[in-house]
Amino acid sequence: MAIKGKQYNIDYVLKRGVAEIISEAELRKLLQSGKKLRIKEGLDPSSPDIHVGHMASLRKMRQFQELGHQIVIIVGDWTAQIGDPSGRSATRPMLTAEQVKENAETYLNQFFRIVDKNKTEIRMQSEWFGKFDLTDVVRLTSKFTVAQLLAREDFSKRFSEQRPIAITELLYPLMQAYDSVAVHADIELGGTDQKFNFLVGRELQSMMGQPPQQIFMVPLLVGLDGVQKMSKSLGNYIGIIEPPEDIYGKTMSIKDEFLTVYFETLTDVPDEELLDFKKQLEKGANPMVLKKRLAREIVAQLYNEKEAQQAETHFEKTVQNKELPDEIEEYKLSQDIAISQLIAQTGLAASRSEAVRLIKQGAVTIDGKKTNNANEIISKGVTIKVGKRRYLKTI
Amino acid sequence: MAIKGKQYNIDYVLKRGVAEIISEAELRKLLQSGKKLRIKEGLDPSSPDIHVGHMASLRKMRQFQELGHQIVIIVGDWTAQIGDPSGRSATRPMLTAEQVKENAETYLNQFFRIVDKNKTEIRMQSEWFGKFDLTDVVRLTSKFTVAQLLAREDFSKRFSEQRPIAITELLYPLMQAYDSVAVHADIELGGTDQKFNFLVGRELQSMMGQPPQQIFMVPLLVGLDGVQKMSKSLGNYIGIIEPPEDIYGKTMSIKDEFLTVYFETLTDVPDEELLDFKKQLEKGANPMVLKKRLAREIVAQLYNEKEAQQAETHFEKTVQNKELPDEIEEYKLSQDIAISQLIAQTGLAASRSEAVRLIKQGAVTIDGKKTNNANEIISKGVTIKVGKRRYLKTI
Repeated sequence: MAIKGKQYNIDYVLKRGVAEIISEAELRKLLQSGKKLRIKEGLDPSSPDIHVGHMASLRKMRQFQELGHQIVIIVGDWTAQIGDPSGRSATRPMLTAEQVKENAETYLNQFFRIVDKNKTEIRMQSEWFGKFDLTDVVRLTSKFTVAQLLAREDFSKRFSEQRPIAITELLYPLMQAYDSVAVHADIELGGTDQKFNFLVGRELQSMMGQPPQQIFMVPLLVGLDGVQKMSKSLGNYIGIIEPPEDIYGKTMSIKDEFLTVYFETLTDVPDEELLDFKKQLEKGANPMVLKKRLAREIVAQLYNEKEAQQAETHFEKTVQNKELPDEIEEYKLSQDIAISQLIAQTGLAASRSEAVRLIKQGAVTIDGKKTNNANEIISKGVTIKVGKRRYLKTI
Repeated sequence: MAIKGKQYNIDYVLKRGVAEIISEAELRKLLQSGKKLRIKEGLDPSSPDIHVGHMASLRKMRQFQELGHQIVIIVGDWTAQIGDPSGRSATRPMLTAEQVKENAETYLNQFFRIVDKNKTEIRMQSEWFGKFDLTDVVRLTSKFTVAQLLAREDFSKRFSEQRPIAITELLYPLMQAYDSVAVHADIELGGTDQKFNFLVGRELQSMMGQPPQQIFMVPLLVGLDGVQKMSKSLGNYIGIIEPPEDIYGKTMSIKDEFLTVYFETLTDVPDEELLDFKKQLEKGANPMVLKKRLAREIVAQLYNEKEAQQAETHFEKTVQNKELPDEIEEYKLSQDIAISQLIAQTGLAASRSEAVRLIKQGAVTIDGKKTNNANEIISKGVTIKVGKRRYLKTI
């Protein structure tokens, strides 16, 4: 965790890797007041995996912590039962209480790789929504109108396209807003796709006699496909608990045009250097060199400098020079075996059918030669490569 | 209560004074099955006064009771806190629990002038909504979409005119629907303006594994203005606990074109006779004669034959022959007094300013002569008339 103990100043926190703040002047005043601020972020337990896209807000939380403030994580055990369609086009399935609990644990284990556990308060929505009755629901829902909520972009789109929006979904932003009231949030932090919900929180706090929270939004990173925002379900992500070599390799595959925003959002490489990078790129420098720096920075934060260096060496050998890596896992064969079966049973693919699919796609080589025969028989002493970075040697 | 003990048959109940039934075939089957049916009607405690417009459904309830069925009255102590905008154009103010209780009592005292108390079950929504929690709300609201509810005419009108609809109001039809589930309603009875809510009830019962209720709708009577439906707030109504003479007199003031529907809905005058009435009217008969019959029928139901006859005599004397009634209340004056003050303090008007307004409108005569001077001094031995039917003599 390279970020830990780093000296941050207010200006840097407010300017670097930020999409929008409502409002910056008020927030600056709060940060200068010396008060320990409560910074809320919601945890959606329906998506338990954290990827590099989430690092934008996780790093920002860590920065606020280093400035002395308190992170308050809301485990959305109630809203996850509803499913928020923010930035999505369909109603999500509801989760059971058990799934919520498991997912929250998985999420937090990853979360604390970047955020300081000791300066984090974890709250469950069930603390307040568990005792919510119909009177509370009536009180909350009477403060907002249908038109106000249908103004949210995804709602209005679905509504105008005559696709269903369950009444329950209108409750989602109100519940998220109520979370801010329940924990007395001074700031709510998250991606720009949450702006609408954050503003509802601000409004509800004012209606209920609390100072309205400041809204701090980080950019949504575009994923490996170069088109959509990074997301687990789209498969265009870099998971933060992936092995260093995978994080490094995947980072190398981002589109050149997003290099700068990745640097700004995911690293502390000084602004002056970044300015220099931009100039180099404009002059036609090879982006590969900068991308390797980016990949190193990210791996170093999630692991350490040494792992970052090793991942780079691995990348240079196997991808840049197409050499075999230094260490290849060995697998002892008791008898000859079909290539697809071997790949499945050694875990290089999740299943036999996945193995067959990879072979058909040309993602599998045997001793450096591509195969498209899933039944090709493998004997001892052969090196198998699956995808870009997975190797196995039979012995 | 002239309706009591009357012999009704299924055909008459299904055909006479009915606006729409969903579905008539199914309902007929149910009525013929010999099963004691549960017939639900909602009581909106935000409007405690019953007028002749309500008699349409009250009479129908009584008819079902005479056929051996059970009336189930739902006191909307929860929905009254929300305010249903059915057929209305604005959000209603919320009621306190105390107001709800008082209003329900007032309502039921009038209600049992027509409906048999012994065959009526009174249920409060708080029996089930009092223990409703957020899980129940989520479960209920997830079954319906925003578009489905905005299809309701008043909602869609307000929505398209960009007038506010509180989220809470969307809950109203769902709660009314849940009432049907809670009491296992076989039939829901009410005015045609409730059709949407009734259908939601039908749908929810099906979703929750109950046979869907039959929907029995009576016509909405047009009020004394001849334009809007009869309603307390519009002032175009005949209250069922008004004195016989007032009910009689007000009935005489309905527009001729509504004579037939009033007869059909509010009386048991046989269909053959009604057909004859229609023919007479077409031939140019004076509607006054028929209207007097209607007024007599209504008063006789709400009081008795004798009162009906007396009210008719009173009407003939004071309105038709412009005579003074037989008995005029006397008021002992201790000193001379301004006409407006006299009217206010004897209760002929609600307040001094109301009295002044009536005088300016020309609704007040002194010894048969109209006055428009609110300060005219009244001495002993003078007969005052306010409006069409209120008299006072000073002594």
